Amino acid sequence: VDVIISTGGLGPTADDLTRQAIAAASGDVLVEDVISLEEIKAVFASRRREMPEVNRVQALRPSRALAISNPHGTAPGIHAVIGDVDVFCAPGPPGELFPMFREKISPMLRPEPGRLVRTRIIGCCGIGESEIATRLGGLMDRERNPLVGTTASGGVVTCRVRVEGVMTGQMNGLDADGMLDEAEREIRGKLGVHAFATGHNSLPRACVEELKKRGQKLSVVESCTSGMVGAAVTEVAGSSAVFVGGLLTYSNELKEKLAGVKRETLEKHGAVSAETAREMAVGGCQTLGCEWCVSVTGIAGPDGGSAAKPVGTVWIGIAGPHGVVTRRFAMSGERQPVRQWSVTAALGALWMDLHQSEVKMLREQERQKF
Amino acid sequence: VDVIISTGGLGPTADDLTRQAIAAASGDVLVEDVISLEEIKAVFASRRREMPEVNRVQALRPSRALAISNPHGTAPGIHAVIGDVDVFCAPGPPGELFPMFREKISPMLRPEPGRLVRTRIIGCCGIGESEIATRLGGLMDRERNPLVGTTASGGVVTCRVRVEGVMTGQMNGLDADGMLDEAEREIRGKLGVHAFATGHNSLPRACVEELKKRGQKLSVVESCTSGMVGAAVTEVAGSSAVFVGGLLTYSNELKEKLAGVKRETLEKHGAVSAETAREMAVGGCQTLGCEWCVSVTGIAGPDGGSAAKPVGTVWIGIAGPHGVVTRRFAMSGERQPVRQWSVTAALGALWMDLHQSEVKMLREQERQKF
Repeated sequence: VDVIISTGGLGPTADDLTRQAIAAASGDVLVEDVISLEEIKAVFASRRREMPEVNRVQALRPSRALAISNPHGTAPGIHAVIGDVDVFCAPGPPGELFPMFREKISPMLRPEPGRLVRTRIIGCCGIGESEIATRLGGLMDRERNPLVGTTASGGVVTCRVRVEGVMTGQMNGLDADGMLDEAEREIRGKLGVHAFATGHNSLPRACVEELKKRGQKLSVVESCTSGMVGAAVTEVAGSSAVFVGGLLTYSNELKEKLAGVKRETLEKHGAVSAETAREMAVGGCQTLGCEWCVSVTGIAGPDGGSAAKPVGTVWIGIAGPHGVVTRRFAMSGERQPVRQWSVTAALGALWMDLHQSEVKMLREQERQKF
Repeated sequence: VDVIISTGGLGPTADDLTRQAIAAASGDVLVEDVISLEEIKAVFASRRREMPEVNRVQALRPSRALAISNPHGTAPGIHAVIGDVDVFCAPGPPGELFPMFREKISPMLRPEPGRLVRTRIIGCCGIGESEIATRLGGLMDRERNPLVGTTASGGVVTCRVRVEGVMTGQMNGLDADGMLDEAEREIRGKLGVHAFATGHNSLPRACVEELKKRGQKLSVVESCTSGMVGAAVTEVAGSSAVFVGGLLTYSNELKEKLAGVKRETLEKHGAVSAETAREMAVGGCQTLGCEWCVSVTGIAGPDGGSAAKPVGTVWIGIAGPHGVVTRRFAMSGERQPVRQWSVTAALGALWMDLHQSEVKMLREQERQKF
């Protein structure tokens, strides 16, 4: 192999042995890296603490290797060359690993000379992988270049487009980008508003940006997801421009008291019903003072299911300037996947309702076709 | 190798090629598995849909391999034997992969005859990895059996104890369990209330169980985490016995309107301050009607920091029957890690405050020692 990337084992305790392993594999000895030591002390200082003596070991690196600076934690990475192999050791915690890979390791990976690979991804919601495959048809043939593939993850389907070739007089980066543009146009033509983003833009970010464009505000009223929709929206930096807040109405009492769901509604239809989802969403707009509100009420399990409302039954309400729409979802799976799926279903429903006029137009066109 | 476990590539689209790869590697052909086909149709039926024709391909398996039933999705697994190697192919989505591994694959993995490995893990909060290493001292020596190691992840440190040996007249499973018990006693003696659970019990679950034991209720009032604490608590099945709900007071207006934070407090001390965290927690107990409330207000970044309150400054308030306590945390990292860390810090603070009397006693003992 040309490159080895390892993660973890760079902590301060006796079971963290990556440093020793790299030194042993390269017949090297460990030395203290002066700059790393200063950086580790600075991390502790930013947390208003002194560096404990036990963390000093994290400044060690093999003498012929380089330390990779880590502004997010106390474990510097290591870049060693063993034989012809580039070895990168990164810390394990995702909050330290991901920035280090993105900013320090990835730029050092050298592509094969002359080889050209360009990819583009398109996020889709409110539509299943099978339906996408049916619509894309021959576009997904395995012999095509660009090659189109799909991946489903928690309610979002991602279309990946990949152009591959050898840089020649016949093909260069510009041509490849043109091929991606053309493929994206074709895919978007077949998927319509279901395609919510190009690139790594998430569904929450797409919703936040759309609301920002319109100058409208959003809130959530959550029962079975109990904060997960609010958490997903506010993961987007700058979401405070559109997100005002929310109500976690886990108990029926709080559905009444905070969101103004009527007692008769809860008694007659139950907490998991179109009627309750509708009143939660409308109540959210009123109490929290905003144009849009997403409500979620469902049975995440493992208990609480019945024949009429099995575990995985989730009602989602979207209140907006056009009124309120509710949708029933029947999901399968364990408690946490059902909840995660509910978040995507809720934000997918919001996205589709934000584009309600376009959805209507598309339906109209389809009706005319048949 | 003896075993290969693969994940993914079992979807319905043309880029899902695991089935073909296993057939090619074992010189086999693909056949339709009748039971799998019925199960896939049943999954669609539970979602109130017909199986699209494109999903039929998911019922294919190499003729000499076995299908592994998947009640959580439309991708059955595959168990093939190629040469001497057991090959297990599981679907990629975590909600399908994890149950299949736990319930179907793991029980089929055969341990080496006579080899004995027993492990135990102990979850710790409110204490860093370095401080744990200092307290455990010689217990963490690499030559010991049981071997003790630590892993830090998002504010929780896990101690792993591992006994390894060959089953002989001198050692059997019972002895190994006794050694684990003894090691756990020693570790818990040194870590006190910081050790919140034995086994894979999560910090949220430990808090939920402690509150259930006392018959007390919990709510949350969240700003920068905006639902993540509520989501973490309700990930625990049965949490409805103790969790009533919460307020996502992302905007200052809602901090006032919903949680009753005074305007003077916001103007004088700012939204990220001990005073605001205190009023959010107290207001939560009052508005939501419960004994305990966890509040979180902080600057998750990337914007909004200042010299006095840099990004990563988070105030946590815990209101309980004993009054209200606030704590300042100075975290480093990107937006989402800061928020995740805040959730653990908040629940760690709740756990410590639930055991306030024990913490006091320990401090008293330490004072007498010096």
